[in-house]
Amino acid sequence: MTDKLREECGVFGVFGHPEAANLTYLGLHALQHRGQESAGIVSSDGEVLRSHRQMGLVADIFNEDILAKLTGNRAIGHVRYSTTGSSLLKNAQPFVVSYANGGIAVAHNGNLVNARIIREELENCGSIFQSTMDTEIVVHLIASSQQVSLVNRIIDALLNIKGAYSMLFLTENEMVAVRDPHGFRPLVLGMLKDSYVVSSETCALDLIEAEYIRDVQPGEVVLIDKNGLTSYKPFRSVNKFCIFELIYFSRPDSNTFGRNVYTTRKEMGRQLAKESPVEADIVIPVPDSGIPAAIGFAEESGMPFETGLIRNHYIGRTFIEPRQTIRHFGVKLKLNTVKDYLNGKRVIVVDDSIVRGTTSQKIIEMIRNAGAKEIHVRISSPPIVCSCYYGIDTPTNTELIASSNSVSKIKKYLAADSLKYLSIEGLRASVNNNGNDFCDACFTRDYPVELPVDLDSRQLTLFEREIIVT
Amino acid sequence: MTDKLREECGVFGVFGHPEAANLTYLGLHALQHRGQESAGIVSSDGEVLRSHRQMGLVADIFNEDILAKLTGNRAIGHVRYSTTGSSLLKNAQPFVVSYANGGIAVAHNGNLVNARIIREELENCGSIFQSTMDTEIVVHLIASSQQVSLVNRIIDALLNIKGAYSMLFLTENEMVAVRDPHGFRPLVLGMLKDSYVVSSETCALDLIEAEYIRDVQPGEVVLIDKNGLTSYKPFRSVNKFCIFELIYFSRPDSNTFGRNVYTTRKEMGRQLAKESPVEADIVIPVPDSGIPAAIGFAEESGMPFETGLIRNHYIGRTFIEPRQTIRHFGVKLKLNTVKDYLNGKRVIVVDDSIVRGTTSQKIIEMIRNAGAKEIHVRISSPPIVCSCYYGIDTPTNTELIASSNSVSKIKKYLAADSLKYLSIEGLRASVNNNGNDFCDACFTRDYPVELPVDLDSRQLTLFEREIIVT
Amino acid sequence: MTDKLREECGVFGVFGHPEAANLTYLGLHALQHRGQESAGIVSSDGEVLRSHRQMGLVADIFNEDILAKLTGNRAIGHVRYSTTGSSLLKNAQPFVVSYANGGIAVAHNGNLVNARIIREELENCGSIFQSTMDTEIVVHLIASSQQVSLVNRIIDALLNIKGAYSMLFLTENEMVAVRDPHGFRPLVLGMLKDSYVVSSETCALDLIEAEYIRDVQPGEVVLIDKNGLTSYKPFRSVNKFCIFELIYFSRPDSNTFGRNVYTTRKEMGRQLAKESPVEADIVIPVPDSGIPAAIGFAEESGMPFETGLIRNHYIGRTFIEPRQTIRHFGVKLKLNTVKDYLNGKRVIVVDDSIVRGTTSQKIIEMIRNAGAKEIHVRISSPPIVCSCYYGIDTPTNTELIASSNSVSKIKKYLAADSLKYLSIEGLRASVNNNGNDFCDACFTRDYPVELPVDLDSRQLTLFEREIIVT
Amino acid sequence: MTDKLREECGVFGVFGHPEAANLTYLGLHALQHRGQESAGIVSSDGEVLRSHRQMGLVADIFNEDILAKLTGNRAIGHVRYSTTGSSLLKNAQPFVVSYANGGIAVAHNGNLVNARIIREELENCGSIFQSTMDTEIVVHLIASSQQVSLVNRIIDALLNIKGAYSMLFLTENEMVAVRDPHGFRPLVLGMLKDSYVVSSETCALDLIEAEYIRDVQPGEVVLIDKNGLTSYKPFRSVNKFCIFELIYFSRPDSNTFGRNVYTTRKEMGRQLAKESPVEADIVIPVPDSGIPAAIGFAEESGMPFETGLIRNHYIGRTFIEPRQTIRHFGVKLKLNTVKDYLNGKRVIVVDDSIVRGTTSQKIIEMIRNAGAKEIHVRISSPPIVCSCYYGIDTPTNTELIASSNSVSKIKKYLAADSLKYLSIEGLRASVNNNGNDFCDACFTRDYPVELPVDLDSRQLTLFEREIIVT
Repeated sequence: MTDKLREECGVFGVFGHPEAANLTYLGLHALQHRGQESAGIVSSDGEVLRSHRQMGLVADIFNEDILAKLTGNRAIGHVRYSTTGSSLLKNAQPFVVSYANGGIAVAHNGNLVNARIIREELENCGSIFQSTMDTEIVVHLIASSQQVSLVNRIIDALLNIKGAYSMLFLTENEMVAVRDPHGFRPLVLGMLKDSYVVSSETCALDLIEAEYIRDVQPGEVVLIDKNGLTSYKPFRSVNKFCIFELIYFSRPDSNTFGRNVYTTRKEMGRQLAKESPVEADIVIPVPDSGIPAAIGFAEESGMPFETGLIRNHYIGRTFIEPRQTIRHFGVKLKLNTVKDYLNGKRVIVVDDSIVRGTTSQKIIEMIRNAGAKEIHVRISSPPIVCSCYYGIDTPTNTELIASSNSVSKIKKYLAADSLKYLSIEGLRASVNNNGNDFCDACFTRDYPVELPVDLDSRQLTLFEREIIVT
Repeated sequence: MTDKLREECGVFGVFGHPEAANLTYLGLHALQHRGQESAGIVSSDGEVLRSHRQMGLVADIFNEDILAKLTGNRAIGHVRYSTTGSSLLKNAQPFVVSYANGGIAVAHNGNLVNARIIREELENCGSIFQSTMDTEIVVHLIASSQQVSLVNRIIDALLNIKGAYSMLFLTENEMVAVRDPHGFRPLVLGMLKDSYVVSSETCALDLIEAEYIRDVQPGEVVLIDKNGLTSYKPFRSVNKFCIFELIYFSRPDSNTFGRNVYTTRKEMGRQLAKESPVEADIVIPVPDSGIPAAIGFAEESGMPFETGLIRNHYIGRTFIEPRQTIRHFGVKLKLNTVKDYLNGKRVIVVDDSIVRGTTSQKIIEMIRNAGAKEIHVRISSPPIVCSCYYGIDTPTNTELIASSNSVSKIKKYLAADSLKYLSIEGLRASVNNNGNDFCDACFTRDYPVELPVDLDSRQLTLFEREIIVT
Repeated sequence: MTDKLREECGVFGVFGHPEAANLTYLGLHALQHRGQESAGIVSSDGEVLRSHRQMGLVADIFNEDILAKLTGNRAIGHVRYSTTGSSLLKNAQPFVVSYANGGIAVAHNGNLVNARIIREELENCGSIFQSTMDTEIVVHLIASSQQVSLVNRIIDALLNIKGAYSMLFLTENEMVAVRDPHGFRPLVLGMLKDSYVVSSETCALDLIEAEYIRDVQPGEVVLIDKNGLTSYKPFRSVNKFCIFELIYFSRPDSNTFGRNVYTTRKEMGRQLAKESPVEADIVIPVPDSGIPAAIGFAEESGMPFETGLIRNHYIGRTFIEPRQTIRHFGVKLKLNTVKDYLNGKRVIVVDDSIVRGTTSQKIIEMIRNAGAKEIHVRISSPPIVCSCYYGIDTPTNTELIASSNSVSKIKKYLAADSLKYLSIEGLRASVNNNGNDFCDACFTRDYPVELPVDLDSRQLTLFEREIIVT
Repeated sequence: MTDKLREECGVFGVFGHPEAANLTYLGLHALQHRGQESAGIVSSDGEVLRSHRQMGLVADIFNEDILAKLTGNRAIGHVRYSTTGSSLLKNAQPFVVSYANGGIAVAHNGNLVNARIIREELENCGSIFQSTMDTEIVVHLIASSQQVSLVNRIIDALLNIKGAYSMLFLTENEMVAVRDPHGFRPLVLGMLKDSYVVSSETCALDLIEAEYIRDVQPGEVVLIDKNGLTSYKPFRSVNKFCIFELIYFSRPDSNTFGRNVYTTRKEMGRQLAKESPVEADIVIPVPDSGIPAAIGFAEESGMPFETGLIRNHYIGRTFIEPRQTIRHFGVKLKLNTVKDYLNGKRVIVVDDSIVRGTTSQKIIEMIRNAGAKEIHVRISSPPIVCSCYYGIDTPTNTELIASSNSVSKIKKYLAADSLKYLSIEGLRASVNNNGNDFCDACFTRDYPVELPVDLDSRQLTLFEREIIVT
């Protein structure tokens, strides 16, 4: 998907290692694909929390000097693309406050669906809010809990919130990892010699050469302190892993929800080839997200895999397209065709998903202009028919092309010779979903956690009482 | 005083003018001497608060683009030198939060003496703190008040706090100016045609050509909204104006506490000449703060006023002195002598105050090296014997040279031929203090507001739970 | 090649288009892979040259405001990785000076081999030099030419220099494109409606939707002015195209030296499979440069192509690796293995070239740690045995692993189960080299342009008379 | 003068001190008033020149890291306000190039009047120019000299140029100080133990505690190398010191042209009081430049000196005045009146000079608005009737109010009750000008160095062939 869903967030933490901040920096770098807007690290030396947060990429935010000041043998970090809250420094995480028991920092991946209601209740009881993040609510709940221990305060707070959350807390002396009862977002435990590591994805463990131990389980609260690791299971849990992690979000070299992502994507491609074969000359991916499924498709169909679209790796969020009266460059800034390979060919184009459809249309036009005789679009997931409320920044339903258009209408819009999506059954088979473990609400409208009414419309106006001018 | 006390803060606000943010920017520029560490403006268009805060000088922080985004016909601004709270962006003001009634911004000049105690109480009731400023406490108290109207919530909050505060609040639709019952810090009201202006000093009114109306009175709460100005007097008040505003802080062109500052300082110089005359050839000030008193001294004594010390106006906080093995430049970077004028002369050096004494010592050495035959130091205020807890960043008592040394010992330390301070009676006469309106605790140890025990020692460790690494 | 050769430079120019600077900006973005150190654009409105040059990436250097100031309907641009001259702003191009006939700007891709000698001659005649670039020499020669017209002055200057150069000149009213008589570096001509476009590669023409017309020919001088395009052929030419453009430098979607780069690289992979087959389970590329050859190898050998190494796309030159006492992360920051796919497999790893060998060694170790049973390394070009003097920043001979080590020793160093390079004959066959058109000196030591003695050792000390401290 | 002439440049150099760069940094800081646009230091360790130049103030440009890299025991530095050449980094000094004999750096205070002609000649002989500074011409002349030694090459070059120049040259092993035959600009020699110091003003010697030795003499060339100091007198000289240095440019604590500046300015004030007395209540200066003359005037006249205008010290070049529809703030941003002192008074306002008159007009209006009953303007120099071509950035004649208006017309424009200038004879008497040593062309049109025709009109268009877009 080049017309991409905004990725959400990634969290990473280390407890008990003399280079905790350095390792967290590396871990965040490996998780950079989960959020490019801001990043932060909070470390603790047992006395005080030290933090550094900034807008931008991990590699641009941190340097040796800054890392050297993040002392202590425990640290947590966060990369963010905002799903709630504006993209401002005050919304960068980890979020750090002082409360009755001392300092506490939190890094959150996910989205709470009842944030508005709880925030109103808290404000009515006299709370003040400085950010627009749902994460701030959790800290208020922890601070106002009548419980004594950190873990019990956290459990107390979580009892009030609904939605998706994989969270890391750090106080002067403890680190706590929690995952919501559905386990929407991934969270894994690892060890680097004697120190504990927690990460959104295993690829970050690989980088620092930590050993993968197990996933934090849905509904589990994991306390890590000087006594080691203690697990709590205060919540009844039902697995509802976000299937989009396997389709698009997670890095292909990660093992997410117990599955290798690359393998799973290849399997989606194979399944797609079985379901929707077509006679053609070459199979090409939309890079980079379509590559594994395209390889799977090519293998299954016996047709040659080619890289008919070349990506410019220097494209970033900062590229400013000059205001052209004549034309708009859009996806051409990112992709170019290899004309020699496409000219006169029947081409199968494999992508992982279609969101708005505008980019896909332009890609097909580019391939057509390169001389392709036939263009068959194959999507390795079902049509996205509705928004996600659990931490993925899908556009509103009206912008999702498959929300109100049939596949044949989309085909026409794309000007493709054929368009086929992977079936929901095919998708489930690809992820080896025996136990019905996944949330696939974006394809099925089957939301595992009930939504408050009018979520979209009221959220902003209530929360954004301060606009920061920069 | 070149070895200077850190100035505190300045506040400025405009209600009902289409260029509210622009005028606030100009007003803050005129108040820049009251705080050079950070500055901020919050404006309101009746719907939402817009803010911009940054470390640095007013002129460096704001530009046309930023000012243009600060829309609305009401705005408040702040320049800060931290007296409590580290010098960090999160401590820059105006402080803005969301609470049950909407958004609220506050700009504070002064210092609360019971901040620690209230903060502990608030944390014990579940509040979380994100800054280390005492100002955050006030907002918590407002948010948790059971009162309905903004003014009543503010009064409710102020009932709990003790110390020095001249504050400006801005919500979507209201501006409120308050001054503590002792009136430690100045706060004046002005009008620019139909719009109200509030400022720490009159020099900012002059710049925007607003008319001075009156001082906000000690213990007064002034509400400005669409119905105009309403005054509340909920607190019993006793005037205890900070006499140091007249000695050093306020700009000489301001009228502070009803007195012209330049005139008052000249009078201190005259009084000093009467009390401690000495035969000499010339009278020179330590620029710039000693100039008015030196002129007064010269006039009274009939000796010629000369500028024997020249100031380098390009010295700022950012000047980094290279690490010299051989010597330390210190005050030489700021001041140089006019040797021709000092050589062979008997010189009277007039300054407004001595804090640590180190700088004064070096200045006297410079004058001696320029060939002065005799050096008579005259200080236009009494010895500072103890710290201020009401918003002036005096060093701890142990660093104040007059805290534990007699005038004759200080004279020896300075290597001056004579040293005389203005008497406390002379000071009081200079400010025409019939009604005993002033706080002069730094000279007399007579603190008008009781202090909690061990204020200095516990404040930091309790509040600084997060260290921001930058 | 991940242990990569520094790419050189890219040039781009537009004549006769109202959005000349905007198009140049886009063209440079498409050529960003040719140099990431600095970039610049010079435009002309017929009266004066306007320039903007800066260190960094094209997207970070230019914005709407800057582009709007680069007025005029002609512009040239440059992206640079320094091959001669330090990486300093003063060495950023286009290089602009004033001389007797007015202003002149030049953008240069390539390297002159007799720069030192000419510079000495020029200095002995009284010339002063402000940069350390060989390009400055060319401008001196133009300025001191006795010829009258710009083209004749340029030809006069070029008669003195030896080496590789594809250059673009811009004066107030003329644009001139030149390519050295061997045509080492590519340079192509295109048209966008009525305006002329010159570019290092065709991928930049594709982006702005310009039509490819033809290559500027070796030894050709092309003048573009109000009268259109005029071609001059003042030099005898012998084709010696840099074969490394096809192996590694050019973007796969470009057609360079009349060949599609992607196709050519796939052919190298096929050829390699024919020459050095081996029984294995999967073929994986070293991303991204090894991908086309790996696809070709897989197709030819009938073995499955897999992406067993995943690249972190957020790695840039700015990533600072924290000083780790324990370990060095190196290539792990860029690449990670897909363990599920490599575990227990016999793996063929395809890369385009090996420079120092250190990175390749680490990649093989990573693949081994992922559980690969056998690792067969296949390189789609011959061993690099000596340095390039025509614009590619190869390390010195002593650092090139193949300069002093046999293939069997390199295999041992890499700890691979087998290692095979493409033969020079195979390479020539792959590029369809009937006419002996290529320079392959880095593989054969057969340098087409004679080198001055002791080039390496004396260049720097003579030129770097000023070190810029930043 | 608040409507001020742009100051020109300052130069500073140290030879033979282990902390040469640190001392130069301090020296430039003391000379900051001579140029605030850019600054630079070049040091030499005997092998190579190291430089750092940047736009901005000395204190903002240099830090410990940068100074530490400027190694070697000799250094020269420069602060600049451009008199020729645009305000661009490429025009920052010291200017450094490589030529036949090695590296050479130059720092120049002054302005050459025949720059255009020489530049044309040089360009016609094949020279290229990269800056628009007249200083670049000198380096070309040195490089193309047939002489062998540095001193002889410099003398050779200087024979060709006309105008004002105090220059410092630095090569790997030599420092050379030169002053033009008229000695327009000051240049002094000092010693710090065994090391030589050269500076535009003595105030910089004072700061580093160097001893003043003597002025570099008009037409003198001073070579400083390992053999110590050697003086050359190759040019016939006639003293024509710039009298404006004493009126306005030099710092009051400097001794310039053998006179203490503060004393001289006081004398101008005394003289003015003698020539143009008037009955009044107080004498106030326009700060800061009018202070010494106002003190002198007050002393002579026996009237009290007061600081009726207070300056905001935070005003800098960066202050952006918001676009106000209603009013323009101008000088009010810098100055405010002390109303209590001015109200009902007859006021004598003393300033050093009037340039355009616009600012003076506004100051008088402010004083009038403060309630002054009478305003008598006294200027401690004669009317400026024409531009300077020797390094002071006076506006063109048409902008100089006294160029085409009589004193009585200016008085009307200023709306002053009276206006008197110091007479030229009074000025000469004040500077004790027995020997006719001064250039006072700006008051008398008596230019000591002949000017080429149409200097103003042609200079820019010929030189500015490149506009740098930033």
